[in-house]
Amino acid sequence: MTDIVAGVDIGGTNTVIGFVNSQGDVLSEGRLSTADYAFAEDFVEALSAKISEMQKGRSDLHLRGIGIGAPNANFHKGTIELAPNLRWKGIVPLGDMMEHKTGLTVRLTNDANAAALGEMMFGAAKGMKDFIILTLGTGLGSGIVVGGEVVYGHTGFAGELGHLTVVAGGRVCGCGRRGCLETYASATGLVRTVLNLLSDRRDDSILRSMKASEITSRRVAEAAAAGDIIAAEAMDQTAHMIALGIANSVVFSSPEAIFLFGGLAQAGDAILVPTRKYADELVQPVFRGTFTILPSGLPEARAAVLGASALIWKEIK
Amino acid sequence: MTDIVAGVDIGGTNTVIGFVNSQGDVLSEGRLSTADYAFAEDFVEALSAKISEMQKGRSDLHLRGIGIGAPNANFHKGTIELAPNLRWKGIVPLGDMMEHKTGLTVRLTNDANAAALGEMMFGAAKGMKDFIILTLGTGLGSGIVVGGEVVYGHTGFAGELGHLTVVAGGRVCGCGRRGCLETYASATGLVRTVLNLLSDRRDDSILRSMKASEITSRRVAEAAAAGDIIAAEAMDQTAHMIALGIANSVVFSSPEAIFLFGGLAQAGDAILVPTRKYADELVQPVFRGTFTILPSGLPEARAAVLGASALIWKEIK
Repeated sequence: MTDIVAGVDIGGTNTVIGFVNSQGDVLSEGRLSTADYAFAEDFVEALSAKISEMQKGRSDLHLRGIGIGAPNANFHKGTIELAPNLRWKGIVPLGDMMEHKTGLTVRLTNDANAAALGEMMFGAAKGMKDFIILTLGTGLGSGIVVGGEVVYGHTGFAGELGHLTVVAGGRVCGCGRRGCLETYASATGLVRTVLNLLSDRRDDSILRSMKASEITSRRVAEAAAAGDIIAAEAMDQTAHMIALGIANSVVFSSPEAIFLFGGLAQAGDAILVPTRKYADELVQPVFRGTFTILPSGLPEARAAVLGASALIWKEIK
Repeated sequence: MTDIVAGVDIGGTNTVIGFVNSQGDVLSEGRLSTADYAFAEDFVEALSAKISEMQKGRSDLHLRGIGIGAPNANFHKGTIELAPNLRWKGIVPLGDMMEHKTGLTVRLTNDANAAALGEMMFGAAKGMKDFIILTLGTGLGSGIVVGGEVVYGHTGFAGELGHLTVVAGGRVCGCGRRGCLETYASATGLVRTVLNLLSDRRDDSILRSMKASEITSRRVAEAAAAGDIIAAEAMDQTAHMIALGIANSVVFSSPEAIFLFGGLAQAGDAILVPTRKYADELVQPVFRGTFTILPSGLPEARAAVLGASALIWKEIK
């Protein structure tokens, strides 16, 4: 018998399920359309059915529990609360619903916390007790680990570093305020910085020939690599803002490492190298040299499922 | 027999020792001049002698350990490192030295972490798992509790919220950078804000009749209470900055409460009320109404000794 955990990554469009063993190998994978289910009850039926289907003919596998990563998930309560990208409105007790349906242990947390757990169990944070992961995608998500435990806080929603206020009266944020870190330090923030530079500077740029809606972080990174001045400046300013977020996190929890993950982190050294330089400049001197900024050690495509499974593996181990 | 702990508060000028029972009563108190001892070895001798002297004739007391609050103390290592206000230079292994000398368990942490422990064991944070204490004195110190444990971080120096960068290119800070929270949100920051307003505004103010070096947070609070426009504006701007620091801390660890302590907190509602109002405005909307801002529940004069003793009481209990 091989012990496995079902890692479930619920996204607005699709849900991915992976059977993960204690080594972090994904033994089998399934998929479900999240958007097809207007009601959480129906989604729970479909998810349970899919997991049962994946177990068929695999009597060698022993399913120990279900870990779920989902937007706006509350670890304490096992709920998904007011998630803007999901069709299920209000507060959905998905953990209880799934436990009731399957009889298994079910744990929920948000994507970034799951990523942190995955990094700790299966990735580059093995053996670390104090670290932070930043997911640089549409927004900036974060998972904070202190003393070997993910920080959930009183509400269960701790670790929202994307909403550190870093520029008074700065860019409009989806949360309704201005100047949040994620409006600068994310894939979307990078594109906004490009648009700002296109308005501010007179330099030629390949980015001037694109529609604003076509500019992506990947295209900016490619243009920067090809020597485009505007793109390179945008990458630099974005690294500066990521570093400011890191500097303001380090004074809080003094982590050993900060991992960068997600779309913008794919740019590799082009974002890591300037981020390290600026973080060293911006951080309180007593913390200089006490932390490293590293790429995530998890494969991008598997990270969410591995992280979700780690919710259960952490309890078993 | 009554179990007691020696709580020791090491300041640049004086060291205060209190014998604290498990209820947080200070049964006896002693004092030592820190500044008299050029060498840590001599201080350890004197401190041990003082503790022995306090035990004389009290065979009813059973001393369980020594908890020490000191500037730049490292909980992990039991050291005091590069403390600018102490005569002992370099890295002083005070914990080991005291354990060797007395044969008792000795624990060290910095003043703000000790305050957090004191608040949790004996003050207004009893039963709380997630809270933050801000000490608003010459600087801004902070003690952060996550899941019932003080956050020390990888280095042992976590919880330096006074050095959150809140204003890019802002006021010069003692740490060598600019725009740190404590240059605005502290007793000293309040006075700097007064000086800035005296330069910026044309309003009459009682504060114009004082030498800059004579202006204290107490005098500003008194002037504000008496209707002085400049003083009131300075209090308001300071509350705004404390609130910004709180808003940027709440996204990190989602505490149940934030306690204000120290010189500036003595102003009571004059600082608490506007700080609450601004924190509610400035915080990420998802956290609105999830935390309260409260005065410390420890008596100012006893807090340091109680907090230091809590280092040991926490381990015993």
